[in-house]
Amino acid sequence: MPKIVNHEERRKIIAKATWNVIAREGLGGASVRSIAKEANLSLGAMRHYFQTQDELLEFAMKLVEEQVTERIMEHLKSPLPPKEQVLNILMELVTPEDKKVEMQVWLEYVLYKIRNNELHKESVHETITGILTRLQKAGLLKEDIKLEEEIVYLHALIDGLALHILMGLVPIERGRIRYLLKKELDRIFAE
Amino acid sequence: MPKIVNHEERRKIIAKATWNVIAREGLGGASVRSIAKEANLSLGAMRHYFQTQDELLEFAMKLVEEQVTERIMEHLKSPLPPKEQVLNILMELVTPEDKKVEMQVWLEYVLYKIRNNELHKESVHETITGILTRLQKAGLLKEDIKLEEEIVYLHALIDGLALHILMGLVPIERGRIRYLLKKELDRIFAE
Repeated sequence: MPKIVNHEERRKIIAKATWNVIAREGLGGASVRSIAKEANLSLGAMRHYFQTQDELLEFAMKLVEEQVTERIMEHLKSPLPPKEQVLNILMELVTPEDKKVEMQVWLEYVLYKIRNNELHKESVHETITGILTRLQKAGLLKEDIKLEEEIVYLHALIDGLALHILMGLVPIERGRIRYLLKKELDRIFAE
Repeated sequence: MPKIVNHEERRKIIAKATWNVIAREGLGGASVRSIAKEANLSLGAMRHYFQTQDELLEFAMKLVEEQVTERIMEHLKSPLPPKEQVLNILMELVTPEDKKVEMQVWLEYVLYKIRNNELHKESVHETITGILTRLQKAGLLKEDIKLEEEIVYLHALIDGLALHILMGLVPIERGRIRYLLKKELDRIFAE
């Protein structure tokens, strides 16, 4: 009897095959054909799930975003004080352990969107905006903070660190990264 | 009489054609064939200058680095005080005007190197390390500064800002970016 794999599950398997191909060969190598091969599917079967390369890429990227969001939600549900929660979320964004492939896919996607002039919003930016806005509303940030500037600053720091860790340029270990981010939060939190 | 174009000049023309193809189609689209077409050369003529796609890409990237280095040297030769010079260099790294293509090529190159596990050094990292090290030796930085951390921090901020400007995510104008970077320098400079 053939194994029953539901539609959504199969789409996820294909999306992860897409990640692997992108991480190995770049977006240029991620044809429907090469992904079908990676996922061990026929071209016909692939087309049953995704008609175009664009559709496939959008889904693969959506899956990255969903996983990141899921991990962030876990941190928000924890009983830790807000500053600790935020610090854990920032660490998640900067150095998701064993998530090199995720970061590569994200960067390839960003470049793809830049080429097509389609990038108008981005989930990490929205996450950081959301977090800082809520912290300010809750009266947890210093009163003289300029929110728009702090969002730009913190997001730049996060993505710059993530990029440099991916590039192997950051010679300092996780503990020191955490300490750097903590100093940054100390600067904007009240008290 | 045919126009005489010297070897190095022709290589630069080809490198810029490579930039344009990469900016438009990504590295995946930058075949020797598509670049020959962009540079208006025959495949045979192209191969006279560059034998492989790798060789071409390395040269195109070297040209990006040379142009950035040249602009930085100009700032270092200026009669402005050190802090102003450094601020101008940082602005050059963050928002090189009309240099969107340069940034795209740089990012594609970074991803290419990550895929091939070849990224061990990077010119902007070396520039920032060099500048902060010299400032510290000249006694211009606060005494309790931890140099290694400040290099990580400043480089992350610079590349994060550059990336977000390229992505169109930073809603604040050049003047405010300059102000953010100035605040950062105020934090580490002595006095």
